[in-house]
Amino acid sequence: MYRIGIDLGGTFIKGGIVRNKTEIVYKTKIETPVSHTPGDTCQAINELVTMLKNNLATGPDECEFIGIGSPGSVDAENGIVTYSNNFGWERPVRLAEAISDPHGIPVKISNDANCAALGECLANNLDKGTYIVITLGTGVGSGIITDGRIYEGSQPGAIEMGHMMIKAGKRKCTCGMRGCFESYCSATGLIKTAVKNVKKGSGLYDAYKDNGTLDGKIITDLVRNGDKNSKQVFEKYLTDLGIGLTGICNIFRPDAVLLGGGVCDSFDLMDEFLNDYVKKNIFGGTNGFIPSIKKASAGNDAGIIGAANLKE
Amino acid sequence: MYRIGIDLGGTFIKGGIVRNKTEIVYKTKIETPVSHTPGDTCQAINELVTMLKNNLATGPDECEFIGIGSPGSVDAENGIVTYSNNFGWERPVRLAEAISDPHGIPVKISNDANCAALGECLANNLDKGTYIVITLGTGVGSGIITDGRIYEGSQPGAIEMGHMMIKAGKRKCTCGMRGCFESYCSATGLIKTAVKNVKKGSGLYDAYKDNGTLDGKIITDLVRNGDKNSKQVFEKYLTDLGIGLTGICNIFRPDAVLLGGGVCDSFDLMDEFLNDYVKKNIFGGTNGFIPSIKKASAGNDAGIIGAANLKE
Repeated sequence: MYRIGIDLGGTFIKGGIVRNKTEIVYKTKIETPVSHTPGDTCQAINELVTMLKNNLATGPDECEFIGIGSPGSVDAENGIVTYSNNFGWERPVRLAEAISDPHGIPVKISNDANCAALGECLANNLDKGTYIVITLGTGVGSGIITDGRIYEGSQPGAIEMGHMMIKAGKRKCTCGMRGCFESYCSATGLIKTAVKNVKKGSGLYDAYKDNGTLDGKIITDLVRNGDKNSKQVFEKYLTDLGIGLTGICNIFRPDAVLLGGGVCDSFDLMDEFLNDYVKKNIFGGTNGFIPSIKKASAGNDAGIIGAANLKE
Repeated sequence: MYRIGIDLGGTFIKGGIVRNKTEIVYKTKIETPVSHTPGDTCQAINELVTMLKNNLATGPDECEFIGIGSPGSVDAENGIVTYSNNFGWERPVRLAEAISDPHGIPVKISNDANCAALGECLANNLDKGTYIVITLGTGVGSGIITDGRIYEGSQPGAIEMGHMMIKAGKRKCTCGMRGCFESYCSATGLIKTAVKNVKKGSGLYDAYKDNGTLDGKIITDLVRNGDKNSKQVFEKYLTDLGIGLTGICNIFRPDAVLLGGGVCDSFDLMDEFLNDYVKKNIFGGTNGFIPSIKKASAGNDAGIIGAANLKE
């Protein structure tokens, strides 16, 4: 028996055949249809599932289930994506049914960030305890894993920690609110903070002028090169990140927080600051348990692994 | 079989004998020792337990367990209060053992806000689904109840939603941080907002001058009497409360949020504003499930009922 894990992204749909807990024996990907419509997207997922099955040279071996991590608000119990901002799905999409029916294989679904979080924990053998996985990408993804299971929240649309406000009324967020954790602490948020605080004469200023924009890597490279302005900007970013993480630790007091996403390629520049910040500011201080902030290390396959390990 | 529920407060220790799910057949209270030391406090709880047992004229009837809701960070699994800011307990207190040993009855403990939250849900027959109970008192207490059980978080010190920052860097909080939900949305926070925004010539100004201070009731009475300044203040307060509740709903997407505490005696002045705010600002808007914000109605006995219904 094997399982198929699907990671539905805005640009690519990635899929893998998973054996045992986390062993990906074959993987491939196809482009996500540009239209992003439910019909086109489901057709593409079905093609990918067929490709995966065809590439499995194991004879009578059977697929136990297909797991899919989808962007948006997911009703895991009923296999429905109730809403996806990124895909422009304004109405419920019966995703599980649309993939299960043509293949005759059961389908389980969850939010993509949840699947990545689960994959991250399983790949690191974090089977016991509660872990919060935060992905700092274009947005801020989040997942809560307890004893190797996704905590789905009560109703579809939960676990959007990126939309907890940390500076209410301030920076505009894509969700319509102002001051969300995501608006400051996503990779996009880091760039905004940098552009807002760039100072003439600095390395950051030169880079901004040369490229017409900035990205996370430019900023962290400049920090490594000792550019003062970049250091100030990055510390502002880390402070905002620390504020959000402290709030999250006060709510869940998890065993650890695992941080992923492109920004965390420079986790060595973040590690000490963030752990110190949380230790200093968490409710009850050192009288209580201090969750550690760690780098998520499972990489791009976490979404596939998590999807292939979804439980009822 | 009956259970004893104890609600350990800063001023009183309240206790009750509970039968069936929520039936309090007898209750009484004693003053909390002013010293607040672990020794004095445990002795007082033991006296209260003896009083409760002696008042039970049922012959050979047996106490199944004693449940205690304690302030502070609680290690429910091991029966230890690891830290209590309000009681000045800087070191772990083995509360369950200290009460269980003299009476020979098993003891279960949890945080007092958790117990009140559980009692609230049970009293309202909310046995299925996830409910967040927020108490707006001197501080902001919070509890998460899923399918009639307390969600304890992973490590002692969890579920401190009052210390999620909503306006980082702004108003000083008792926890040492600035901009916590509690610093704006506790009853104390409402008074601070009022004092900061009082305008000469208003009813609020007169009340402030007459009393030398303000309290929640003065403010809401003035709102009812049409005082414009008080209305502005209360709307500021409700906006901050809406910000925090929206963040909480984005994280948990609960079936409902139940609001308790003295301020909620005026829930009729809060109901429409808060429900509209969350509906308008929640992630995904009306495409997703909109949790309703309701008044907690179980009153002062919720802590006893919850403590008497603690599960392993």
